[in-house]
Amino acid sequence: MVAINCDMGEAYSIYRCGDDEGIMPYITIANVACGFHAADPVVMRKTVALAKEHGVKVGAHPSFPDRDGFGRREMKLDPAELTAAVIYQVAALTGFLKEQGMPLNHIKPHGALYGLASRDESVAAAIAAAADVFDVPLMGMANTVHEQVWGQRSQGFIAEYYTDLDYRSDGSLIITREHAAYDPAEAARRSVRAVTDGVATAVDGTDIPMRADCICVHSDTPGAVDLAKSVHEALVPYLN
Amino acid sequence: MVAINCDMGEAYSIYRCGDDEGIMPYITIANVACGFHAADPVVMRKTVALAKEHGVKVGAHPSFPDRDGFGRREMKLDPAELTAAVIYQVAALTGFLKEQGMPLNHIKPHGALYGLASRDESVAAAIAAAADVFDVPLMGMANTVHEQVWGQRSQGFIAEYYTDLDYRSDGSLIITREHAAYDPAEAARRSVRAVTDGVATAVDGTDIPMRADCICVHSDTPGAVDLAKSVHEALVPYLN
Amino acid sequence: MVAINCDMGEAYSIYRCGDDEGIMPYITIANVACGFHAADPVVMRKTVALAKEHGVKVGAHPSFPDRDGFGRREMKLDPAELTAAVIYQVAALTGFLKEQGMPLNHIKPHGALYGLASRDESVAAAIAAAADVFDVPLMGMANTVHEQVWGQRSQGFIAEYYTDLDYRSDGSLIITREHAAYDPAEAARRSVRAVTDGVATAVDGTDIPMRADCICVHSDTPGAVDLAKSVHEALVPYLN
Amino acid sequence: MVAINCDMGEAYSIYRCGDDEGIMPYITIANVACGFHAADPVVMRKTVALAKEHGVKVGAHPSFPDRDGFGRREMKLDPAELTAAVIYQVAALTGFLKEQGMPLNHIKPHGALYGLASRDESVAAAIAAAADVFDVPLMGMANTVHEQVWGQRSQGFIAEYYTDLDYRSDGSLIITREHAAYDPAEAARRSVRAVTDGVATAVDGTDIPMRADCICVHSDTPGAVDLAKSVHEALVPYLN
Repeated sequence: MVAINCDMGEAYSIYRCGDDEGIMPYITIANVACGFHAADPVVMRKTVALAKEHGVKVGAHPSFPDRDGFGRREMKLDPAELTAAVIYQVAALTGFLKEQGMPLNHIKPHGALYGLASRDESVAAAIAAAADVFDVPLMGMANTVHEQVWGQRSQGFIAEYYTDLDYRSDGSLIITREHAAYDPAEAARRSVRAVTDGVATAVDGTDIPMRADCICVHSDTPGAVDLAKSVHEALVPYLN
Repeated sequence: MVAINCDMGEAYSIYRCGDDEGIMPYITIANVACGFHAADPVVMRKTVALAKEHGVKVGAHPSFPDRDGFGRREMKLDPAELTAAVIYQVAALTGFLKEQGMPLNHIKPHGALYGLASRDESVAAAIAAAADVFDVPLMGMANTVHEQVWGQRSQGFIAEYYTDLDYRSDGSLIITREHAAYDPAEAARRSVRAVTDGVATAVDGTDIPMRADCICVHSDTPGAVDLAKSVHEALVPYLN
Repeated sequence: MVAINCDMGEAYSIYRCGDDEGIMPYITIANVACGFHAADPVVMRKTVALAKEHGVKVGAHPSFPDRDGFGRREMKLDPAELTAAVIYQVAALTGFLKEQGMPLNHIKPHGALYGLASRDESVAAAIAAAADVFDVPLMGMANTVHEQVWGQRSQGFIAEYYTDLDYRSDGSLIITREHAAYDPAEAARRSVRAVTDGVATAVDGTDIPMRADCICVHSDTPGAVDLAKSVHEALVPYLN
Repeated sequence: MVAINCDMGEAYSIYRCGDDEGIMPYITIANVACGFHAADPVVMRKTVALAKEHGVKVGAHPSFPDRDGFGRREMKLDPAELTAAVIYQVAALTGFLKEQGMPLNHIKPHGALYGLASRDESVAAAIAAAADVFDVPLMGMANTVHEQVWGQRSQGFIAEYYTDLDYRSDGSLIITREHAAYDPAEAARRSVRAVTDGVATAVDGTDIPMRADCICVHSDTPGAVDLAKSVHEALVPYLN
């Protein structure tokens, strides 16, 4: 059984980002931005309402406080600063969930915070301390500090597989600032394989084990809607 | 029966504002800043913990998004923008309340938002729409649009009397950017009179009717702790 | 003689806004955002370099401090706060001009600040006080407080005519949050008429006097590049 | 010959920070905050005017974009992002200098940016690229990457000695978030010794070579004014 998730609600002020309306029909979980790297209260409110309309579960997508850098620049925060910053953002989102009568599904950190937490135990632990307040699982990458630290929590860990990004043979993800277009059919094949066989193909052609509780698609990739639709169609038999 | 409230948690970054530790023992309700005019997540977390320690109830103190101006400058937001901005801030605070196992007691808007809502029905209504999400009362000034709009809500309205500020003979409050020192004994006398007789003395010496569900003291007035202590001692028989 | 100006550099973080590269060849003056409603230092630096490449003069496009609202929401600042905020933004832009060896051409306030200054003398005066520091002209609308206050400055006043927006018969501009598409040929005809005859047609069909030192085109209108190109071609004989 | 410098203008919004009025008479150079870690346009304007009044030279004190953290948290910016951010801040300050008819004296990065530049050549170089635009010297610590990279610039390098902080025996500074009180007489003796002998005493009692073009005092240390006064009196014969 698998879910399909996408980062949503990353518009801001007059600026748009990704085709949320186009993608929402093809996902089952939305990670919604909380105002520190993207989104503002109006965008968050609209995004949660859109998710509700499509029966999509909502998790929080908190970030370092860095709107100028879209949360993609590492910052050195004390663990206490980080825990407080995550509680603040996640809680802010719950206001819009409360309005729609929806529960908070999970937390998935954004950008540089996500990346740093995949390598640094104290950062991962500081995020976990915030997630404990809301009693929800964290979402992240298998075979990293994410799984190592967050996998020990009683609320469970959601391992996500990036169907439109490449992996190294050691299982690590190749993160790029701008996402290239990806063949929808190939993404669908990769997704099914990860779900059914627990295996992915690395950039060097070797097979790597891949736990995939959730398939992650992007909304800002060229052709994102087609890709999400293709992945969704292929995964229908496996969706939870 | 009466409560004593004070705006708390208005420190920010390395900056301090008011003697929260000194005043907390003498109040029964704290209005805690939510990050848009003052406070950051670390300050909010500490302030909520401090309130818990002293058995003080916590309400949210949301603002216009104007940290440069400490929320004291009017802004023209659409009602939908305003409702979303208030939901965001109040919800953010509830994260720290959730951590402490405390309920949200009420919402009291800050500064220019408070002032504008006392004169403009659409602003008051936009704030009420946010408060409805949390199902809590709003706190404000009697004899203004606050009471007119918020007094109709099923959750009730909390009328506050400013014991360290002056009123005009039409019942309106004289708001000043910097608060002058006020005689603690006089503040105590004024408070008791408002609570027991429902009357205040205006700057021109005339008596004006004054509903006082709650006595508001300031933390940034010179001698604020002494004043709070004096008011608290005088009101002990009337505290709810 | 006439110039063609456009608001430029309104991208921010990962977000784009308007086709600056497409429009720059067809304008002679760029009003560059200064970071308070749009733009960040990287965007400003790129925009100034792009203007230099095309021989386009650069003015500053300062705003209320309101990035969430793209500077489109009125704020009540003290005149001293406003003057300081404008000096700050304009000066910030001059750093990038200095790097390119370019002078500051003028200042044109943005959005709600532009609108408020067209009606409120104290706001217009506070902006003029900032412009005096840089000894440059202000750009704005004829027949408004802009011309009335800024027209008295020794540095001169630049009256701009909006070729892709409509005017009322009293000469006032109909400002819309989102700009509709406009026929390029019609915009060109309107521009030439304003330049040669000093006349514009209001929405009710009547002719109104229109001083047009500068024709303003928008970069975020649908078909903006075609419109700018059409206006530019028609105005070639009149460009200064 | 030596100068005395102090970080100034670190108030913000309603918040105060340090006793600028008290310290200004005892320094010869002020490093003025530029709005990214502290200060706002009103504070900057006042601080520059205060410096002018006391015949104090003004340099810029730019920071990482981190007001929540007072610029004390490291951020990973691209060199191009960093150069642009520094140009923006320094230029913003020059607006207030222009108003007072004062030149920009130098640039001294703040907090985490200062610290990171003392260890990381690419960061130091990105800052130097910004300083080149203004053709001014950079101020920093001798025996660090500051001197190594910035010392090669034709505009010169200003080595500062912290008279109220301790040094390790390898010449490195022990940076603390909150500065302890320091004996004014001892600070004065240390300052004179650094200026006349080029030597400082490390925390372990050993002597270390110390280039001191400038003595740095803090405004937020307890007893800061007394210390600045004491250092100033002792250095009168050596001030340039």
